Amino acid sequence: MAAMFEKVALIGVGLIGSSMAHAIKRGKLASHVSGYARRAETLEKARKVGFADSLYDTLEPVVKDADLVVLATPVGTYGELAKDIAPYLKKGAIVSDVGSVKSAVIRDAGPHIPAGVHFVPAHPIAGTEQSGPEAGFAELFDGRWCILTPPAGTDAAAIEKLKSFWQALGSQVDVMDAHHHDLVLAITSHVPHLIAYNIVGTAADLETVTQSEVIKYSAGGFRDFTRIAASDPTMWRDVFLNNREAVLEMLTRFNEDLSALQRAIRWGDGDALFNLFTRTRAIRRSIISAGQDSAAPNFGRIPPKPEKNQ
Amino acid sequence: MAAMFEKVALIGVGLIGSSMAHAIKRGKLASHVSGYARRAETLEKARKVGFADSLYDTLEPVVKDADLVVLATPVGTYGELAKDIAPYLKKGAIVSDVGSVKSAVIRDAGPHIPAGVHFVPAHPIAGTEQSGPEAGFAELFDGRWCILTPPAGTDAAAIEKLKSFWQALGSQVDVMDAHHHDLVLAITSHVPHLIAYNIVGTAADLETVTQSEVIKYSAGGFRDFTRIAASDPTMWRDVFLNNREAVLEMLTRFNEDLSALQRAIRWGDGDALFNLFTRTRAIRRSIISAGQDSAAPNFGRIPPKPEKNQ
Repeated sequence: MAAMFEKVALIGVGLIGSSMAHAIKRGKLASHVSGYARRAETLEKARKVGFADSLYDTLEPVVKDADLVVLATPVGTYGELAKDIAPYLKKGAIVSDVGSVKSAVIRDAGPHIPAGVHFVPAHPIAGTEQSGPEAGFAELFDGRWCILTPPAGTDAAAIEKLKSFWQALGSQVDVMDAHHHDLVLAITSHVPHLIAYNIVGTAADLETVTQSEVIKYSAGGFRDFTRIAASDPTMWRDVFLNNREAVLEMLTRFNEDLSALQRAIRWGDGDALFNLFTRTRAIRRSIISAGQDSAAPNFGRIPPKPEKNQ
Repeated sequence: MAAMFEKVALIGVGLIGSSMAHAIKRGKLASHVSGYARRAETLEKARKVGFADSLYDTLEPVVKDADLVVLATPVGTYGELAKDIAPYLKKGAIVSDVGSVKSAVIRDAGPHIPAGVHFVPAHPIAGTEQSGPEAGFAELFDGRWCILTPPAGTDAAAIEKLKSFWQALGSQVDVMDAHHHDLVLAITSHVPHLIAYNIVGTAADLETVTQSEVIKYSAGGFRDFTRIAASDPTMWRDVFLNNREAVLEMLTRFNEDLSALQRAIRWGDGDALFNLFTRTRAIRRSIISAGQDSAAPNFGRIPPKPEKNQ
């Protein structure tokens, strides 16, 4: 059977790019995978892991002759990159991306895509708190959702091809409007990251509780937030700068609800607290039934090695 | 070798009580473990699992002759329970608890403890999002911290004995003032739970994003919060009602910091975002080095079974 693509170009070989490369190899989805990284250090790491057939720090050789070009760097770089790769894009190629925001990508990269090249933005909803070429693995997308947000008028065959590609990478695929995607992700991903970063910052800055206490006693809940707050800073800065409206809208609602809880605590309204705390359990159960998380307690997390007993 | 205690009485056999029973059996720390539950259904479940030597729905037979009595129900019940067990407490016995707040426990239960009985409040910082007698397991406390908050003047030998007991259950033990404990836990546990409950509630109430979308696309970060927001509602209601001051203080700081982040997003201040996001990574690393979480990406969570591909 012929591979799905002759050549796939990955512009960026961090967690997502390198995981795509591994999954492409696993599924034999391309005859050649080329990779681009700006920094020599990143290229060297990628070379050592060995998931790409060719690696360069310039765009031309990476993009040349590719049937599929995927932008997999922080979303703030997409406009510039799209402009820079445009001269080398093959007629009929698909340009896609993996950015966590989609309206901004269409706004920034869209205008640079030449006629005859198909632009199909995508967002695989998968990741870990780690980053870089050594963090990738083939199973990252298995069972996860990937959302495509093609602008109106995009070639139907190109959409279909990218859909099959993501299914072959292990994902389930949905197609939706970019604006709606950005709203959904603001609540399911962006605001959760923001409040995780925020509480870890708040805890670090206290004078009444030392940082060492925060670390020692983190098993009560805080440690879960630190995982999310260990995600790649550049990627997340760009997400917030590029999904401003939706994040601010969701944040306003979060704050309103939090004020109500704060008031319930101040006035000792136990029923209000109990009612919310009961309602939220149902959502957890639905996420587990939908196959989006493990039912094992504590995520079935690998037990850390205990420190020597005092 | 003689067991550490002749008889340990567990007032409450939910996640924590049943895990203590399992760990007591594992370490052969008591000749007899008695358990109390108010509801017949809970007693029946506890009987089926079989971690206790005797089980009753009345307090007298559970507490009688016990060397150690541990309150392991939601903290809102401790005052009443302490009053009810007082007549049956053996001279020289230790009364302890496992509550997540400590000043309120000393305030509510303390006055009922008879002379000649030692009151040593304790808080094992361990748990999962599950509850009930079937959720317990012997390893829950391994490598976790347990904080003792004995009031001034508590018998030193009783403190030492309870410390050895928790070490034998697998924990590391610290002793601190109850007020300070409540501040530390407000930031490492109570406020994280509150904001997790809150964002799950916010997400459920949106009109622009459906609940089914929230569930499908939760792998972007939200699903981690739903685990915490699936914790026992009664236990957590009581925590917030009984650690009001410290929670409100920490919540005020959290809100101030979140307003600053919100402003940075509104005005496009990428540096402010990047700086915070970089700082928080270091805290994650420290928690892993301290043995309080797994270094594996995504907590090394067990991969959920994917839904059938569309």
